[in-house]
Amino acid sequence: MKIVVLDGYAMNSGDLSWEDLKKLGELSIYDRTPESKVVERISDSEIVITNKVVIGKEVFEKCKNIKYVGVTATGYNVVDTNLAKELGVIVTNVPAYSTDSVAQLVFSFILEHSQNVSKYAKSVKSGDWVNSKDFSYQKFPIIELAGKNLGIIGFGSIGKKVAEIGNAFGMNVLVNTRTVSKTKLDVNFVSKEEIFKSSDFLTLHCPLNDETKEIANEKNIKFNEKFCNFNKYWKRRAYQ
Amino acid sequence: MKIVVLDGYAMNSGDLSWEDLKKLGELSIYDRTPESKVVERISDSEIVITNKVVIGKEVFEKCKNIKYVGVTATGYNVVDTNLAKELGVIVTNVPAYSTDSVAQLVFSFILEHSQNVSKYAKSVKSGDWVNSKDFSYQKFPIIELAGKNLGIIGFGSIGKKVAEIGNAFGMNVLVNTRTVSKTKLDVNFVSKEEIFKSSDFLTLHCPLNDETKEIANEKNIKFNEKFCNFNKYWKRRAYQ
Repeated sequence: MKIVVLDGYAMNSGDLSWEDLKKLGELSIYDRTPESKVVERISDSEIVITNKVVIGKEVFEKCKNIKYVGVTATGYNVVDTNLAKELGVIVTNVPAYSTDSVAQLVFSFILEHSQNVSKYAKSVKSGDWVNSKDFSYQKFPIIELAGKNLGIIGFGSIGKKVAEIGNAFGMNVLVNTRTVSKTKLDVNFVSKEEIFKSSDFLTLHCPLNDETKEIANEKNIKFNEKFCNFNKYWKRRAYQ
Repeated sequence: MKIVVLDGYAMNSGDLSWEDLKKLGELSIYDRTPESKVVERISDSEIVITNKVVIGKEVFEKCKNIKYVGVTATGYNVVDTNLAKELGVIVTNVPAYSTDSVAQLVFSFILEHSQNVSKYAKSVKSGDWVNSKDFSYQKFPIIELAGKNLGIIGFGSIGKKVAEIGNAFGMNVLVNTRTVSKTKLDVNFVSKEEIFKSSDFLTLHCPLNDETKEIANEKNIKFNEKFCNFNKYWKRRAYQ
């Protein structure tokens, strides 16, 4: 059985082992594969492992032996899954490996925006706090997350983790999902329209498909007035 | 009854009202008060409101009318509370006003360190990601909080809130406190020695007193080996 790893570097840059995979068949590993070499490298392999290399119609048509495509990532939009289904090719992704780190990333972004840590660090280093007349030195707005609306589109393992952390920060968590399920988390399930209208922060944890493609578009993005006014309020302040 | 606010700007820079306080007596408000003017401004006032202005031995000795000192902050180390007790002067602080925002600040710092958002933002803007051969572009270490040890010294309302958020991030929460209490939070109560030895991140939410003064000293700060090794590992990597 021939196995080909098309872009192994993304998952294993030298700190993991391919040995177990090697035991299963004749294994070829490429760090990266440009589009022009995909068909040639898969050739008559039965198993294809990809991270971001696209396995679309042309590849399936030219590489007839493919029986399984393993995506070493969560997003599986790189594979034409409709065609794979038609051809009886099994496709798997890894939906849960990144739950904690993606949820952490979301709050890193939210807090970078809300707390302005890097701007304050730069300002403090330049002497602004030392020269401030007040102990409570405020140069940039700080937005308290407690009581703010956190919108989450998609309520899989990542969406749920983000909701849990949002709850801990005292945020009101709004969720829009195809599949409303029972949960112990303190969330309100709302419509797509409502989530765009009411969220102070909006984070997407849904598959990329026809329904969700370009969902954060001009029509949908209408963050609430309260938030816009907050920024205007700060611009008027004398702290600058 | 004479009431004096010594450094009102710290609490009220124009967006709050002093009206309710004015109803209680003859009110004098100063935005800021230098040390040299404290005694003169308090004079024969019975009520003193301070944020960061120090009310020490000399002040109490010269301003005999003081009956109450209100600290418009959580930390009350600006007041000589032992002497106040002796003199029968009531001192209050505001222990809970900042719970959410301080807990938020703690995680802003932890995430700024762990996720390197501002460094990545700068690097991405300069074109590093666009020019990267890999989709999974990694220039600076990213530390996953889940499974890391979060040490909290002090377990009042702020310490508990920090623990709650730490739990949501999947961290192991270690707590050192004088008063061990029952809690629904997932925390381990440990000794001072243990918390310094085992914490990947350490955060202080205790009063500043003789027991806690300069606690984060050379002797106590011994972050664990695992964490030091992590940084060394990253320095060896080829991503730079």
